[in-house]
Amino acid sequence: MANCLVAQSGGPTSAINASLAGVVRGAKNSKSFDKCLGALHGVQGLMNEEIKDLTDIDTKKLSLTPSMYLGSCRYKLPEYADAPEEYEKIFDILKKNDVDTFFYIGGNDSMDTVSKLSAYASAKDESIQFIGVPKTIDNDLCVTDHTPGYGSAAKFIATTLLEVSHDTAIYPIKSVTIVEIMGRDAGWLAGAAALARNDYNVVPHLIYLPEVAFNEDEFIEDVKDMIEKHGNVVVAVSEGIKDKDGVYITSSSATEDKFGHSQLSGTGKTLELLVKEKIGVKARAVEINIPQRTAGHMASLTDIEESIAQGEFAVEKAEEGMSGVMITIHRLSDIPYTTYLSTTDIDDTAGLIKHVPKKWINKRGNDVTDEFIQYVKPLIQGEVDLKYKDGLPDYMDISDLL
Amino acid sequence: MANCLVAQSGGPTSAINASLAGVVRGAKNSKSFDKCLGALHGVQGLMNEEIKDLTDIDTKKLSLTPSMYLGSCRYKLPEYADAPEEYEKIFDILKKNDVDTFFYIGGNDSMDTVSKLSAYASAKDESIQFIGVPKTIDNDLCVTDHTPGYGSAAKFIATTLLEVSHDTAIYPIKSVTIVEIMGRDAGWLAGAAALARNDYNVVPHLIYLPEVAFNEDEFIEDVKDMIEKHGNVVVAVSEGIKDKDGVYITSSSATEDKFGHSQLSGTGKTLELLVKEKIGVKARAVEINIPQRTAGHMASLTDIEESIAQGEFAVEKAEEGMSGVMITIHRLSDIPYTTYLSTTDIDDTAGLIKHVPKKWINKRGNDVTDEFIQYVKPLIQGEVDLKYKDGLPDYMDISDLL
Repeated sequence: MANCLVAQSGGPTSAINASLAGVVRGAKNSKSFDKCLGALHGVQGLMNEEIKDLTDIDTKKLSLTPSMYLGSCRYKLPEYADAPEEYEKIFDILKKNDVDTFFYIGGNDSMDTVSKLSAYASAKDESIQFIGVPKTIDNDLCVTDHTPGYGSAAKFIATTLLEVSHDTAIYPIKSVTIVEIMGRDAGWLAGAAALARNDYNVVPHLIYLPEVAFNEDEFIEDVKDMIEKHGNVVVAVSEGIKDKDGVYITSSSATEDKFGHSQLSGTGKTLELLVKEKIGVKARAVEINIPQRTAGHMASLTDIEESIAQGEFAVEKAEEGMSGVMITIHRLSDIPYTTYLSTTDIDDTAGLIKHVPKKWINKRGNDVTDEFIQYVKPLIQGEVDLKYKDGLPDYMDISDLL
Repeated sequence: MANCLVAQSGGPTSAINASLAGVVRGAKNSKSFDKCLGALHGVQGLMNEEIKDLTDIDTKKLSLTPSMYLGSCRYKLPEYADAPEEYEKIFDILKKNDVDTFFYIGGNDSMDTVSKLSAYASAKDESIQFIGVPKTIDNDLCVTDHTPGYGSAAKFIATTLLEVSHDTAIYPIKSVTIVEIMGRDAGWLAGAAALARNDYNVVPHLIYLPEVAFNEDEFIEDVKDMIEKHGNVVVAVSEGIKDKDGVYITSSSATEDKFGHSQLSGTGKTLELLVKEKIGVKARAVEINIPQRTAGHMASLTDIEESIAQGEFAVEKAEEGMSGVMITIHRLSDIPYTTYLSTTDIDDTAGLIKHVPKKWINKRGNDVTDEFIQYVKPLIQGEVDLKYKDGLPDYMDISDLL
């Protein structure tokens, strides 16, 4: 028997530790591995041999802890021809630690690393297997129905929009609140704001995604129209909206700070200034910021359970001898929500971005359709059984990283 | 028998509906009132006779719904000499609706209204009673130990800082994250960030409150020092920090937008630019913004229960014939946390701001002391039993306001 090793990379989500917990649990329950090791700080930490034994970790608590328990790196492994010594070093360390399977949980760069290392293993006839377990709050990976981490981010965003609705509704005045949501290229997160709507709540009144060219005049018209109808207007907007020439709308807001440097406002702030200037009503921008990817206290139970399952499934696929694959999820139906897990060749998703389909955006380009809502709704269902200590979430100790 | 009437005013908190639920429940259980009426939009809505019957409302659900179920107003009632007709109108409407007791839940302006109306009642020998039930996330009211709404805001802020710690810890690089927290005049909310610290977490590394004159050079020194020690540094800062001349530090960040208008950056953004310029490391600002006052999903059970109790207590005091008073809470001990309710003359708190005591701030002025933490800790204890529907909090229908 040999060991397996797991690492995490890319940006945080509330579910990436659930995938880690799934790998650890799967490895422990399998008869194929002695120990489940973890490398700190992704493949960079692996090269520094920052390795710890995860076999006896509390996987329940781990699965409910946001961000990366093992830390992360933003590192694109060079092509073999450019840095053969890095590949050799990685394989030396894996062999030294008796590792025959490497699970890499992360986004596009991590999948690229899995691709390169598995190709190298084939070329050198090395028996070490490499399996990618995806995650990204952005939900913009192809082939898979959705990505671990997205459901929890969507649940936090929709909850925040619902609470913002309660907040903005109290004064009978005209005002515009612009809520800026993450998403440079795809509108999956901003679109999830639509889930805040319910029997009584119609907020957000408008939603703008990067998939549609942003038109300033139409935006002002739409906002004026909604002010007429509702008084208090709430707009959800992707940080990544661009004009018809593909230029980020924030680029129009450049100002010079007191140090003489050019500063860009955020997207929300840019629209706030536009509304104040063109309509003359009270306006403010709210950026949901870091909490949308790290608010573990509002994680989606569905997301956490699916992430654990993908980790466990990755171990099964390793036992079947697979390498150079990424775990995928496929949907059979929305109601009842039914899915199954599978794998895809790691190169099938590389570098491609899954956008919100045009047919899931309304004609005016200022809202999502019911199809979008039916797609996201199952992903935010269920609340996690998080324990609290002294009034705060009782997360895993991350003092290794602090 | 007559009716009582309740209204809400000022800015949102996660507990102001719990006080409302307490008044409704108290009125229903008392033998003194036929109906419990509610005025929409505070005393302004009362003057427009926007009144609804609250007697049979679901008080459990109401108590867990953030922001104001009845809507709000920002209205300072003029002195009687300047607008006698407003006083007469209010009393006419109260009498027409057979109201003999008016409960006003709100902040300083609401307490001022209670003061003026009860004085008018005395002067005119009217028998209508006026009782103030305080709330403010700012916790800056005098006489009372703390204010309803503060504990829930503190719990959300501390949770967010803990989650930000998990988020920022993942990369082994030098970076500074500035978290901007509400509080123009007092540092109670920013200080609550210290509660994020636990067995493993030392974030936030630095805390700046409006009670201490902000010194740019010392700040840069402190941040440099923490970068040396920790790499990733997280700073919590009140939006209201000022320099030694009492000038808001944001005033140094004025830039001109593309419309030619002067724009102030937020406090966090101002410090972000300062860190980038003077230290040259990666820096970013995160503004917690609206969610800190309206994230009902992270309300403190202690805060909600105390707010309900203050509402019920207000009804008891009305039955005893009191008028022109505000409900107060007094602490007997931190451990075990023991308090009792009382009343104070409504004019005792008017216009005064309760600051964080100097002895609860460390000597360097960049952190709070253990005494501060012991004071806040009991207020964030316990989680609410919030129901969810379709994956989101199941709050009260506020379609009257939307």
